Formats: sequence, C-alpha cells, structure tokens
Amino acid sequence: MFRRSPLSAGFRIGYIGGGQLAAMSALQAFRFGMDVAAYAASADEPLCRMTPRMTLGRPDDIDLLTAFAATCDVLTLENEFLDAAVLAAVRDRSGTPLFPTPESFAAIEDKIVEKRTFSEAGIPVADWREVRDEADLTRFGADFGWPYILKSAKGGYDGYGNATAYDVESAKRGFAKLGGESGRPILAEALIPFTKELAVMVARNEHGVAVYPCVETIQENHICKVVVVPAPIPVPLRRQAQELAVAAMEAIDATGIFGFEFFLTADNRLLLNESAPRPHNSGHYSIEGCATSQFENHVRAVCQLPLGSVDMRRPVAVMVNLLGTHARPVTADGIGASFLEPDAHVHIYGKRWSRPGRKMGHLTVLGDELTDTRERAETLAKSIRV
Amino acid sequence: MFRRSPLSAGFRIGYIGGGQLAAMSALQAFRFGMDVAAYAASADEPLCRMTPRMTLGRPDDIDLLTAFAATCDVLTLENEFLDAAVLAAVRDRSGTPLFPTPESFAAIEDKIVEKRTFSEAGIPVADWREVRDEADLTRFGADFGWPYILKSAKGGYDGYGNATAYDVESAKRGFAKLGGESGRPILAEALIPFTKELAVMVARNEHGVAVYPCVETIQENHICKVVVVPAPIPVPLRRQAQELAVAAMEAIDATGIFGFEFFLTADNRLLLNESAPRPHNSGHYSIEGCATSQFENHVRAVCQLPLGSVDMRRPVAVMVNLLGTHARPVTADGIGASFLEPDAHVHIYGKRWSRPGRKMGHLTVLGDELTDTRERAETLAKSIRV
Repeated sequence: MFRRSPLSAGFRIGYIGGGQLAAMSALQAFRFGMDVAAYAASADEPLCRMTPRMTLGRPDDIDLLTAFAATCDVLTLENEFLDAAVLAAVRDRSGTPLFPTPESFAAIEDKIVEKRTFSEAGIPVADWREVRDEADLTRFGADFGWPYILKSAKGGYDGYGNATAYDVESAKRGFAKLGGESGRPILAEALIPFTKELAVMVARNEHGVAVYPCVETIQENHICKVVVVPAPIPVPLRRQAQELAVAAMEAIDATGIFGFEFFLTADNRLLLNESAPRPHNSGHYSIEGCATSQFENHVRAVCQLPLGSVDMRRPVAVMVNLLGTHARPVTADGIGASFLEPDAHVHIYGKRWSRPGRKMGHLTVLGDELTDTRERAETLAKSIRV
Repeated sequence: MFRRSPLSAGFRIGYIGGGQLAAMSALQAFRFGMDVAAYAASADEPLCRMTPRMTLGRPDDIDLLTAFAATCDVLTLENEFLDAAVLAAVRDRSGTPLFPTPESFAAIEDKIVEKRTFSEAGIPVADWREVRDEADLTRFGADFGWPYILKSAKGGYDGYGNATAYDVESAKRGFAKLGGESGRPILAEALIPFTKELAVMVARNEHGVAVYPCVETIQENHICKVVVVPAPIPVPLRRQAQELAVAAMEAIDATGIFGFEFFLTADNRLLLNESAPRPHNSGHYSIEGCATSQFENHVRAVCQLPLGSVDMRRPVAVMVNLLGTHARPVTADGIGASFLEPDAHVHIYGKRWSRPGRKMGHLTVLGDELTDTRERAETLAKSIRV
C-alpha cells in the first residue's frame, strides 16, 4: 500500500492541520522513527514548531495540498473542517494514501449526512430533520417538542454553530443566525434530556479494531472541561456504548481513529450525538492512562500497523482541560503542585496566544478511585492559570 | 534566571547534539509547549527531523555555538564529547544559561579528572593512575596486578578508547594504539572482577534531587544490551548505589540529569565506574516505567522546574536495545509481536542508516516479576531486525 515500509528510514506522515491533536500524534510518529510534515493555516500552530517540513495553505487549495501530499508517504487529518471531494482529489492526484479515507469522511462530513449514515446503520440518534424554511421549523417543534436545537450541518464545534429554538420566533432567528436563509444546510434536532454525555474512541485498520473505554465528558459552556474514565455508569451500558461505536466505525468502513459522543438518557438509552474522524479531546487521558495512547493508535491505524492494547494502567483516569484564563501570550502559572504529584501529568500545547476558554493544555491524573482522583485533578487544574 | 518563564510561549531549549537522547528529551520539551533547537553535526541526526530550528556545526566552533545559543533560552547537551572551556565561552558570550554547567562538566570531562574528582569526594572507584610512559605502565601492573585496562581520558564510549594490558608488551601496544605516544592523556585502571554492572540516574536542580532506581546493565561486546529494573541485588546495596550517585552529583554541584555506572564486586563493594552528564541508555525504561521519565526530568532539571516523581508504575521494567543487524537504510522488521503485547513499548530512533551493533531503537517491557519480564523482552527483541 505504501511506497515503503512505515518503519523504514524517512517514512513521512503528513498532517492536514497543525493543531494540538496533530502535534500530540506527531510525538508518537517520532517515536516510531517517522518523519512528520505539517500542512497548516499558520506557522504559529503547535505542529509547526515540531518539523522542518511545513506548508502553509488553505484547506481547500487542491493544488497546494496535492504538492504537499506528493512529499508524504501517508496523509491524515486532525479536524473535520475539510471537504471530502478535496480530500479525494488530493489523494487521487498525488497517489498518496489518505486515512481516514475520503469515502469514510464523506459519510460523516456534515451533520445531515452523518445522521443519515448512522440512522440507516441502525445506530440510535436523536430525532432530527433537515430544515429549509419556517414551515419546517414550525413542524419540527410540533412533532418533536420545544425547545429543540438548530445546528449548521458543517463547521460547528464546542457549541459554535448551534442555536436553541424555544418557539417559532427564536427558531427563525437561530435559523437566520446560522446562515439558513442564505442557503447553508441546517438541521433541527430534538433536545435530549440526557443524564450524562459519554464518548468512546475506536481505532481501526486492516489489522483489526481497538476500542477504548467508555468515558464521561463534562462540559462547561459547551466546552469539554473534564473527562472521567471509565464513565461512572453500569458496565453493560459502557459495553453497549463501545459496541455502538464499533458499529458506527464499521458503518462507514473507517480507517484511523475516531471519537464517538453519546447521550445517555434518563431511561438509559444511548444516542449517538457526534463523531470525529481523528484523535479526540475525550481520549487525551490515554497518553498516560492506557497501554497504547489514542495518538499511538492513530499513527498505527493510518500506517496500517497492528493496533495496540487499550488496557488501562490504573483503574481510573481523570483529564481536565486547561482553558485559557487570560488574553495574553501563553504563560502557564501555578503549575508547581501538578509537577510534584506523581499521578499528575501536565501537557501544554505550545500555542502562542491564550484567550479565555481556549484549550491551552490538559492535565491527567491517574488513580484508584473516582471521586478522589477527580477531586485531585480539579484542584490541581484550578491552581493553573494559562 | 531565564529571559522568560520556561512555560511561556516560545521558550526555546537548545540541544548541543542531535542524537536519540536529545530527540527523546525534545519530545518532553514539546509536551511542555517549548520550542526546540538543534545544534548537530549532520542533518541526518534524529533531532533534526523534529524542529525547523537546526544549526549544523562542529562541537568546537565557539562562534557558531554562541550564535546558536543567542537564539535559545536555555542550552543543554546530550553527549560528553565537548570541551568545558568551549561550553563556558559559549555560555558567557551568549548570556544563555547552560546546564549542566561548564563547571560541573569540567569536573568530569575526562576520565582522569573524573577519577580525581570522585576519589577526592570519598566515592570509591577502581584503583587508577595516569600513565605517561613504559615505566608507569610497568609499575601499574606491578602495583595493581595484570591484566589491567588502559583508557584514553577523553572520547571513549561503548568500549572504544579502551585496551587491555596483559603484560608490558601489550600495555605498550595499547598505550600506542590509544595515542599515548603522541601525548593523549591515558589512564590505567585495575581490572575489577565485578559480578554485576549497575547504574543510577539522578536529576538535580535548585528545587532538589530526584533519584531513579538502581538498575542492572548487561553488556554484550561492550555495548549495553539489556537493562533490568530494579537491579536484582539486595535492597541495601541498591540504596547504597543511589546514595553514592547523589554524593557524586553533589560533589560536582550538578544541574541536569546524570547517569552513574557502578561495578558490584564479588565482596559486595560498589565502585563508581563512569558518569554521563545527560540522559543515559540505562534510563530509557523510565519513559513508560516511571511516573516521570528521565527525559521529562532532564527538561525539568535544566529549566529549573520542580522535579517529578520517579515512582515505578509496575514492579519491574526490562529494556532491551535494538542494535543494528544489517548495514542498510533503516527498516524495522518483525516488530508485529511487540506491537500486540500490552506491556511492550517500541521506540525507533529515526536514524537513517543501520549498521551491525548500532543503537537503532529500544524496547521496554513492564511486568510484575523479573525472570518472566526479561524473557518476554528478550524474546520480543530477538524477533526484531533493524
């Protein structure tokens, strides 16, 4: 499949996107002796300080991406703000394998296609419809209840690209805000009164599948703040989430590592919420928490190497995102206590500028018991200002 | 001490030397959000594929080193084939802190100075003398017995720079081979009939000291092949080795991370054999084996950050070096079994060319019991050809 063995001198993995996910993945590629190349929007992105092989460009510049691809042995990506047709063109013109494949990517590249893909595969999702006009907006509320959520099909993350529809008037305002009136595809989704948000990472390639533990993700202001591993729910529910994640992976014939987010409802139903075709914030704990991290299995998966064990090294892991506290050039203050704690592991992403709420790093604490470990992690994280 | 906080955007750590030790240390610097710069002899060195900031030069080029240093917030090194006077000039001219300091480095920079330093500090070493002529060579054999070892004071490693003196004739030949006749400083050292070779890593800076477990190192053809952690010797002896390593560290007022190699004699005496002012092959197991790896504590130590816990994550770790099996461009074959073993962790260094006996990577296996863990590690390593 590749021009040379992924474990031979000079094998080069090209990342489309230069953010912290690509950077953490690249650290593992280096560990296998690989070279790394970055296709990034800005030289300030974390991956760009880690390689002499940087191309700056837009994610829709097929010619530049193709030239970049031609210098790489395999391509992968670290965000979903890409176009499947662009990816297919780049792969086909360059002849460089790209994982996840553009075909898998196409099956989830916007939220409407994604819901359709997983619904058709029998994976439970929240009730949803594509909405095109006021009549659709009104009918959705009537059919599935108010309030509900409006989402732009493409480009949303961390709560951006969402609006809550409380009634027809606010539905119309949300629809307009998200660009629905100028033709951007919008979907309506029933508001799920969930008790927990869960996530499962899955790596998959021609060697098989590796399924990480089911975790709980805890959001603040729509941004993931804390991840608790394993999710404090009954084991059969955890297992069911893992099975649904694998089914979703198979439904799109995915190669690479994907994150799947679920809602757990009050009546213990699991609904697939979103998927991400890349390493995922909910999997950062695995760097120290698992025998093989999500980043190592990302590299293994896209290089078609055998996948590694996801066994947990300790019974519990808690990850806390270090969100920007100031608008300023990055300085991590108050990190001393974390540095002295044997079970704590601090990661700072190497971004140049902090701003309130921006993901600047994370802290993972391993432990034997959930409540205590979470408390230690949150206490340590609180003392850090970044 | 530094121009800006080590945890602020753009803080740059400069490595003098671009080999695998610098590369593995750099992976940890990236994890703290730091930038990395390489001063290397060749663009093919492992660290050079990991940074856009590479300077190619000789290790004695003070002007070029000073210019390099001026672009960095802190400097460190990854081998001892440097000159303390050069390091001092570079630090003083650039104003960039350099750890380990040239003063500590000077106290161990050649084997004669090193033996004198540690002897004077009361740390037991093998009997030794500087030898300058045939009379010295003859007298050493008479005083301390035949055979003995001749060592060039500077530049030896992995058995290079050593010769065995069986009698006066072979002593003269070895002395000549090592350059003694053209004035290179040579020392004679009593041959120690050791039962084991041991090593201890110590990190130290203004925050304190972190002492790693005492390990056993097993050599083949003078090259470290296997490291067993902890060393299978009585606990009081392990503790004594750790105490001697700390005493050695204090004797030279060292900042950074140092490796200390010991002989264990048949009558259970510990003799300090060699010191290395940098991460050390005997400490690679700590990447997965300890709460804080030697590379993380290297970065913390030279950046004057609080040192991390050296607690072992599992009772036992065994590291096996993956030595080159062929003279060829690097290709790691037969790695599949290691990739499937949850307790095994493979590192390939990203060197371009393999040759028999060259250190190309390593494999660490964690476990609960020594014999079994070592057997698994050696079996897995045997299946890898690199």
